[in-house]
Amino acid sequence: MTEKIKIGIVGYGNVARGVECAVAQNPDMELCAVVTRRDPASVKVRTPGVKVVAAADAATLAGAVDVMILCGGSATDLPEMGPQHAALFNTIDSFDTHARIPEYFAAVDKAAAAGRHTSIISVGWDPGTFSLNRLFAESILPDGAHYTFWGRGVSQGHSDAIRRIPGVKNAIQYTIPVESAMQAARSGSQPELSTREKHTRECFVVAEDGADQAQIERTIREMPNYFSDYDTTVHFVSEDELKRDHSKMPHGGFVIRSGRTGEGNHHVIEYSLSLDSNPEFTASVLVCYARAAYRLSQKGDHGAKTVFDIAPALLSPKSAEQLRRELL
Amino acid sequence: MTEKIKIGIVGYGNVARGVECAVAQNPDMELCAVVTRRDPASVKVRTPGVKVVAAADAATLAGAVDVMILCGGSATDLPEMGPQHAALFNTIDSFDTHARIPEYFAAVDKAAAAGRHTSIISVGWDPGTFSLNRLFAESILPDGAHYTFWGRGVSQGHSDAIRRIPGVKNAIQYTIPVESAMQAARSGSQPELSTREKHTRECFVVAEDGADQAQIERTIREMPNYFSDYDTTVHFVSEDELKRDHSKMPHGGFVIRSGRTGEGNHHVIEYSLSLDSNPEFTASVLVCYARAAYRLSQKGDHGAKTVFDIAPALLSPKSAEQLRRELL
Repeated sequence: MTEKIKIGIVGYGNVARGVECAVAQNPDMELCAVVTRRDPASVKVRTPGVKVVAAADAATLAGAVDVMILCGGSATDLPEMGPQHAALFNTIDSFDTHARIPEYFAAVDKAAAAGRHTSIISVGWDPGTFSLNRLFAESILPDGAHYTFWGRGVSQGHSDAIRRIPGVKNAIQYTIPVESAMQAARSGSQPELSTREKHTRECFVVAEDGADQAQIERTIREMPNYFSDYDTTVHFVSEDELKRDHSKMPHGGFVIRSGRTGEGNHHVIEYSLSLDSNPEFTASVLVCYARAAYRLSQKGDHGAKTVFDIAPALLSPKSAEQLRRELL
Repeated sequence: MTEKIKIGIVGYGNVARGVECAVAQNPDMELCAVVTRRDPASVKVRTPGVKVVAAADAATLAGAVDVMILCGGSATDLPEMGPQHAALFNTIDSFDTHARIPEYFAAVDKAAAAGRHTSIISVGWDPGTFSLNRLFAESILPDGAHYTFWGRGVSQGHSDAIRRIPGVKNAIQYTIPVESAMQAARSGSQPELSTREKHTRECFVVAEDGADQAQIERTIREMPNYFSDYDTTVHFVSEDELKRDHSKMPHGGFVIRSGRTGEGNHHVIEYSLSLDSNPEFTASVLVCYARAAYRLSQKGDHGAKTVFDIAPALLSPKSAEQLRRELL
């Protein structure tokens, strides 16, 4: 057995703890450090022997960590954290503000190239495996239309965005696909479906004492990229109600492409996920892409990448021969 | 617009005509030659201006064709045709005898590397996009099990294998998934399902006059890799019945992976296809991989490859920037 891939995690929230679990399922990897903005002494990591390092001291891990998995939020954490860490480490992140991906890619690419590191951005399931399926299906069936549906499930990115609003103590957001739109997408009639027609959003919000609830609701509904293009319902609930009724983080969804070939032959390609735990699944995707980042960096293939740039074989611990024999 | 990718096709059967249709849907490509074992004068290619060349003269196309798409059968055509053409051209094929992929890969790799060409073998949907989904899903959820189901649909490879039996005039083979096995795979209980439990095979065979039907049936049932591990039903029908009832080539199937993360969270990843025309869909996959083979050969990345080695972005006519903006 060659040496294990040494994984570091920035953050220790739901996705980070999912990364910890996923690393334990991959015998060619080991978790060796957690970087935190909290007091390191207050962070109890379940895996024995893992170093906990203050965010300000992250640079001390350079050379000791093969791939750093950045488990920060896309709204404010990653735009800073991404380029910063790409200068010091190979990195993986799940940056998911679709509209801002081009600028984020450019910033990480610059830092990673200068630092001679490999950084794979926007990894997870959407962006991530859903994006891959959009790309594969569109390349195979250029004369067609694709549809992405999410839910019913909790979106971490959207819940996080609500939690950043002043006066909000806690929040959970459900993304809900509209049943009639799903049926239309499956029919092969290739309907044009607007963002608003495809999904609704439902928010359960715990406000701080004395907070202006009407103002919070308005801020949510008008938030660009996240909520402004959807029919959004906001419910204010108590902390207890939120814990009792909304503490699970299931999710799922599907990518459908409907396309034509020849003289009117019709084909449907469908990819779907049904997930008990969105953060644990996302973490599992991050971890297999960490293997790819490590391998690319070993080959000197540096700079920012996305899932589109990663040859699938790089994700697996199996050799090329084994993959051809067992999975092709 | 840069110059178009010049595509050649070896063969002019169902898949080859599907390739012709697919090339017409991709504005960055053009069909420029068909290579045939028949009398070239007898082959009427629908696309105007396409050169028809006898198999013996294929080498005269070297330099004029960017990628040759080999539309031969896996049983006897490709083992010879693959290495032969890889020495002269970048190639794509749909070699689908899973058990013999390692030796076929080695033979094509040797020829392609020596000829400084790029050859992507075993492209299509299985092997092909199904293989990719097995690899992605296993890499993401290492603690799990995957299941591939096919049908109900016509398998070209299996029909072809029957047609090569002496005394067989024509044949169509349907692969049929066993409903109870599909339900078990979806349940998350991760059952072990044998090859025989998952599918049955049903064959409609037109025998030549005076052929020994009992012998044909025995040959089918006992054919290794193709039929010996399945419950197979063989029906002898007339040519007219075959034409009337079995002339469509629908297919489909799905790849499911069921896996666990953390403390018992369960996830299901499912990829499915519903195809009006198996050969046209297969051809569409071949054509987008031809784009990848061309690009790799331009970069000097020669030798044999499989879908596992191809970064997804190479399949699309869109630029990396456009892909990140539109599909990530």
